[in-house]
Amino acid sequence: MEKLDPKQRLERLGEDLIRLIQEGQNPHIRIPVRGSSNVIWDQSAGLLHLGDKMSKRYFINVAHARKFMQTLLVASFAKQLLDEGIHTSLREAYYSLKRTLPNSKENTFEEQSESDAAFVDLEVTIDLIRDQLHINADRRGTAAGNVIIEDRGDEIDWSRLGSGGWSIPGNVEDIKFKEIDADYILVVEKNATFDRLHEDKFWKKHNCILIGTQGQAARGIRRLIHRLNREKGMPVYVFTDSDPYGWYIYSVIKIGSMNLAHASAKLGTPQAKFLGLTVSDIYNYGLEDAIIRAKDVDLKRAKEIMKYPWFQHKEWEKEIKLMLKNKVKAEQEALAKRHLRFVSETYLPEKIENRSFLP
Amino acid sequence: MEKLDPKQRLERLGEDLIRLIQEGQNPHIRIPVRGSSNVIWDQSAGLLHLGDKMSKRYFINVAHARKFMQTLLVASFAKQLLDEGIHTSLREAYYSLKRTLPNSKENTFEEQSESDAAFVDLEVTIDLIRDQLHINADRRGTAAGNVIIEDRGDEIDWSRLGSGGWSIPGNVEDIKFKEIDADYILVVEKNATFDRLHEDKFWKKHNCILIGTQGQAARGIRRLIHRLNREKGMPVYVFTDSDPYGWYIYSVIKIGSMNLAHASAKLGTPQAKFLGLTVSDIYNYGLEDAIIRAKDVDLKRAKEIMKYPWFQHKEWEKEIKLMLKNKVKAEQEALAKRHLRFVSETYLPEKIENRSFLP
Repeated sequence: MEKLDPKQRLERLGEDLIRLIQEGQNPHIRIPVRGSSNVIWDQSAGLLHLGDKMSKRYFINVAHARKFMQTLLVASFAKQLLDEGIHTSLREAYYSLKRTLPNSKENTFEEQSESDAAFVDLEVTIDLIRDQLHINADRRGTAAGNVIIEDRGDEIDWSRLGSGGWSIPGNVEDIKFKEIDADYILVVEKNATFDRLHEDKFWKKHNCILIGTQGQAARGIRRLIHRLNREKGMPVYVFTDSDPYGWYIYSVIKIGSMNLAHASAKLGTPQAKFLGLTVSDIYNYGLEDAIIRAKDVDLKRAKEIMKYPWFQHKEWEKEIKLMLKNKVKAEQEALAKRHLRFVSETYLPEKIENRSFLP
Repeated sequence: MEKLDPKQRLERLGEDLIRLIQEGQNPHIRIPVRGSSNVIWDQSAGLLHLGDKMSKRYFINVAHARKFMQTLLVASFAKQLLDEGIHTSLREAYYSLKRTLPNSKENTFEEQSESDAAFVDLEVTIDLIRDQLHINADRRGTAAGNVIIEDRGDEIDWSRLGSGGWSIPGNVEDIKFKEIDADYILVVEKNATFDRLHEDKFWKKHNCILIGTQGQAARGIRRLIHRLNREKGMPVYVFTDSDPYGWYIYSVIKIGSMNLAHASAKLGTPQAKFLGLTVSDIYNYGLEDAIIRAKDVDLKRAKEIMKYPWFQHKEWEKEIKLMLKNKVKAEQEALAKRHLRFVSETYLPEKIENRSFLP
């Protein structure tokens, strides 16, 4: 499939089925297994991905027929989107495709969860991400920096967007990077911290690209970071709260997630580094007064994270153990304890100058 | 206070206290009461606002002293922000201001809820919104359309931002509208619908400004809509899901909210109209197959909303009763049932052409 574009992959899927029918065989689709039993941690690539377990979905099989029909419905729908050059969301796709089959009481889909699953089956079957099939993820996040992109015929200069910034869409497949004058990408969890750094023109003074995720990084943001890293060699530093949720945000940007293991190769950025806020930072930067007491749920989550293969580094072990021992966490905003511009004038420049990152 | 700028208002607050001290009086601040007992529905203005009940907060009074101290701490902090030309968030302000008073075990603030409340007390006392004191709200939302603004020295053309759009900041006080070529503002609840209209260049074909709120409209969005309506006379049409939550989103944009009644005059847009999705639209546009069954909580909320004075219009009564009778609701995305571009090619043009709005 390597060299086929999305439309060709959909056509290949259809042609293969026609061939089976013409040969008098039971039409079927080979679909990689998506359950956790087939998710593999690929240490050399630094990514989660799907293993090679495959399942077959047959048309003439009472247990398969409904899902077979659903898979072909979403494939046909995706083909239409590509033909018409139109994008849509999973929710709209569900409404578009939900109907009662003629002369029956059978609905194509009962719930959106069914059409969502059918799209993921299609993604893994033809080995691409649904963004490439014009199914957009929800939009979230903001970008600023010395970057000029081309998108839908517009040239957009991320350094000239005032206090706002560029609103990152859910689908960044068609964006072209025209000019980049930056040494790295700084990914920031909290909007308040993004706003602080943006007002202080941190991206200008330190020649970087600033990306605000507003919590967990949305799919469009992860794909954007991936593309800037892969296509333009941009180093990526992730700056979150000092808590297990922040570590998780980082790990999803870096190695992908179990749920979307099939998409990690296109969404993950294995070269990303964790800048902070580390647990040690709380003590190194005199933030003891701004500590939040860790709850049981935090400690439980920290213990789980410590066991993940991708957190098996002595630096992470030390940090997580320090958190468990002192039962503390802290937010990015805690740096305001020192003074409001401490984060942009002292903390970040020092961490980056000293390359004080976790792997 | 009418003609005083924010810094002068803060100085006036301090000078009044110094005068009281010099006169040998117990220093105090007059603060409008904020509870629901003092929230008034102003029918002629079409806004919620605070009534004229006042409270006095004394320095020498064991029940008042702590809050008195907190009010002055946030006033002094706001003065510094204005002096330094720096903005921040409520969370960072809390971290900045939280400390143990010298020679005591008394903290300035125990929880952020205390500093948040102190900022609101300050807002109502000097009759401005905290945005004017450089305390930013969380950022959310996206704008597109034939609008050129000036912000932090940049000229930003909302019509040239590709599939992204302009990321609306939490504070829009300093934005200048340079050029506007649009007939109205279309405010859209769902990102997916915003993306649909944006891809179809709805704002270009129908000469409007498109604002996506991503759910409940954030403060920055509401202030932006207010300013475009007030300063530029832009009509505002709000397009949400057909459910009580959508109606509430609309009412907050229009008349304000109980919690922020003191800020309604600066955040609300009484001239806003509700475009849809109405309950009647479900039937008028053949969306019966895309109905969602209303839950008990929806019906309960609908009955509450029907009693609000600002929903006392026969058109609203008819809509809410239809919802209660048929126990139905529907999402904006349900319009995709007809076809993906039905919303941009048929539904919205018809509704706007016929001025089929609810008050």
